[in-house]
Amino acid sequence: MPEPLSEPLFEKIALVGIGLIGSSVARIIRKNNLGRHIAIATRSLETLERAKQLGLGDSYFAQAAEAVCDADLVIVSVPVGASQAIAKEIAPALKKGAILTDVGSTKSSVIAQMQPHIPEGVHFIPGHPLAGTEKSGPDAGFAELFENRWCIFTPLPGTDPQALEKLSQFWRLCGANIEIMDADHHDRTLAIVSHLPHIIAYNIVGTASDLETVTQSEVIKYSASGFRDFTRLAASDPTMWRDVCLHNKDAILEMLARFSEDLASLQKAIRWGDGDKLFDLFTHTRAIRRSIIEAGQEVDAPNFGRQAVEHQK
Amino acid sequence: MPEPLSEPLFEKIALVGIGLIGSSVARIIRKNNLGRHIAIATRSLETLERAKQLGLGDSYFAQAAEAVCDADLVIVSVPVGASQAIAKEIAPALKKGAILTDVGSTKSSVIAQMQPHIPEGVHFIPGHPLAGTEKSGPDAGFAELFENRWCIFTPLPGTDPQALEKLSQFWRLCGANIEIMDADHHDRTLAIVSHLPHIIAYNIVGTASDLETVTQSEVIKYSASGFRDFTRLAASDPTMWRDVCLHNKDAILEMLARFSEDLASLQKAIRWGDGDKLFDLFTHTRAIRRSIIEAGQEVDAPNFGRQAVEHQK
Ligand SMILES: NC(=O)c1ccc[n+]([C@@H]2O[C@H](COP(=O)([O-])OP(=O)(O)OC[C@H]3O[C@@H](n4cnc5c(N)ncnc54)[C@H](OP(=O)(O)O)[C@@H]3O)[C@@H](O)[C@H]2O)c1
Ligand SMILES: NC(=O)c1ccc[n+]([C@@H]2O[C@H](COP(=O)([O-])OP(=O)(O)OC[C@H]3O[C@@H](n4cnc5c(N)ncnc54)[C@H](OP(=O)(O)O)[C@@H]3O)[C@@H](O)[C@H]2O)c1
Repeated sequence: MPEPLSEPLFEKIALVGIGLIGSSVARIIRKNNLGRHIAIATRSLETLERAKQLGLGDSYFAQAAEAVCDADLVIVSVPVGASQAIAKEIAPALKKGAILTDVGSTKSSVIAQMQPHIPEGVHFIPGHPLAGTEKSGPDAGFAELFENRWCIFTPLPGTDPQALEKLSQFWRLCGANIEIMDADHHDRTLAIVSHLPHIIAYNIVGTASDLETVTQSEVIKYSASGFRDFTRLAASDPTMWRDVCLHNKDAILEMLARFSEDLASLQKAIRWGDGDKLFDLFTHTRAIRRSIIEAGQEVDAPNFGRQAVEHQK
Repeated sequence: MPEPLSEPLFEKIALVGIGLIGSSVARIIRKNNLGRHIAIATRSLETLERAKQLGLGDSYFAQAAEAVCDADLVIVSVPVGASQAIAKEIAPALKKGAILTDVGSTKSSVIAQMQPHIPEGVHFIPGHPLAGTEKSGPDAGFAELFENRWCIFTPLPGTDPQALEKLSQFWRLCGANIEIMDADHHDRTLAIVSHLPHIIAYNIVGTASDLETVTQSEVIKYSASGFRDFTRLAASDPTMWRDVCLHNKDAILEMLARFSEDLASLQKAIRWGDGDKLFDLFTHTRAIRRSIIEAGQEVDAPNFGRQAVEHQK
């Protein structure tokens, strides 16, 4: 984990949206002294009040435009479908020379929604830290969320290299590693590594809760035999995931089509009792988990280490 | 966790198969003094040698028939497809009055494979402890595996109630809770809570490793955004899962058909941008995780508690 700075990187940072991601950013800014002043804006008075109670910032606003005034860095952390409304609202108040970024899970759509409204002289750099949990709201955040995770930027042509480097420095000081790619490639990549897994998890949990021959209480009771692994992703925020589905439609539909093709072929192997084919597929997939563990993106403990957590209680 | 007995429940217990499940049983028998003598048999000399090194038993055999001689309890823990061969092999050596059980993940097929060979006077009681991890072999087992998990019996008509009670007592002393149902209901229930999740996990990991537009190294790198949750199930033993697919075909195909129907309807909602429908499904599934946590079948820590395990290192 990076050490705290002696002098802050930014004078004033504005956080628009203070849920899981926004509040994790607030916590790490404070912890590592990345900004002298943290201004927080969120839509509802309830969330704003909670952020205040948690001491996440230095000033609090119900209007995003007020929070971003004079800010050197503005981070928008709201469901992707709200990007355009936020861009319109804050655009007139943005300071010349400010860096504006977001954390949205889809990038082409966020760019299309925000870019037309950004005034000349503001450095708009779309971003996406690949870090999260199934929880949401300001209580769910924690300073270590971004540690050893990737933060992807999808900069537009003509982006100022100094602004990009400063934003990269910010995220590195949050513990993240930086990657740059174009928005289209981001959206396809995330469609397979994140969006499809969430959609499939939502779907299987839906199927299991809707059978006549097996009751929902049986599904719950016996869930430790596999099913429970899917319920974590399927417990993620519905608004966020509705927006992801609506705003990365093409890439998601493409990956869904691939998945369904493969499933049809697996189904056929089961129907015809093709043991060799099943064995080959089941062997092939084993290696991938090993690589993920070696890449430091997963723990090696059996059952994700649940036993250890259980016995800590 | 139950306390160790002062006097063992069985004089001699034979374990046929000493992988994840068999070796976990061996460890808890020893820990809680459930049998005076543990006889171990496994197919390969390599596994047998490893079991010896780990000190899992009191006597070791390459022939299952030798291990089961004089045993009061015989527990078969091999891939379900090997059930018939094992039954044929051990049948002539079984002691009159002995209890014979198994731990296989499918029940109708195991009954069909074993029952015809079991001699009169031996109490054959098919069983399935719903506990496991993605690891296999004798090193992967641990005494706590069955703690607070369910053990399902699917007794045949005419089963001796005393034998059933004694076997139930054994599994309770391993930490498990007992449930009784018929084999057909077991197979359908497990098809949805365990078999379908594993098959879907294998499938999605297969799809992701086979794309042209996103490389396998990108999938690995960015896997923490959702995909990695599926890789645990998809890293399970290929032989075991090939056998499960071949020996619970009908119930699995039924559940796969349901899953695919639901997925087609979800796909349609994405294609047509039906945000309300997506939001409804994504809300509905959230409640199930809460119920599973309340039922004590899952930890509540974000990300399955991976962070805690990571920081223990
Ligand atoms: N969760 C993850 O795992 C994850 C990971 C990486 C990126 N992301 C992205 O990060 C962003 C925020 O996600 P999160 O998990 O932090 O969400 P969250 O915990 O639900 O917080 C959402 C924040 O956005 C505000 N908000 C919600 N709807 C809004 C609207 N229509 N207009 C304006 N503000 C609105 C909320 O305000 P009120 O509470 O005041 O209503 C709250 O401050 C999303 O774009 C998501 O795609 C999420
Ligand atoms: N893993 C789970 O999560 C889980 C949970 C509940 C129930 N089960 C059931 O428990 C049983 C055992 O699974 P496990 O996870 O313990 O497997 P495992 O760790 O792979 O061990 C398998 C054991 O069976 C032996 N074996 C393998 N193939 C055999 C064959 N063709 N003939 C005779 N013996 C053979 C192995 O012997 P060698 O090593 O000497 O070859 C080893 O002793 C399976 O029926 C499975 O469905 C598994």
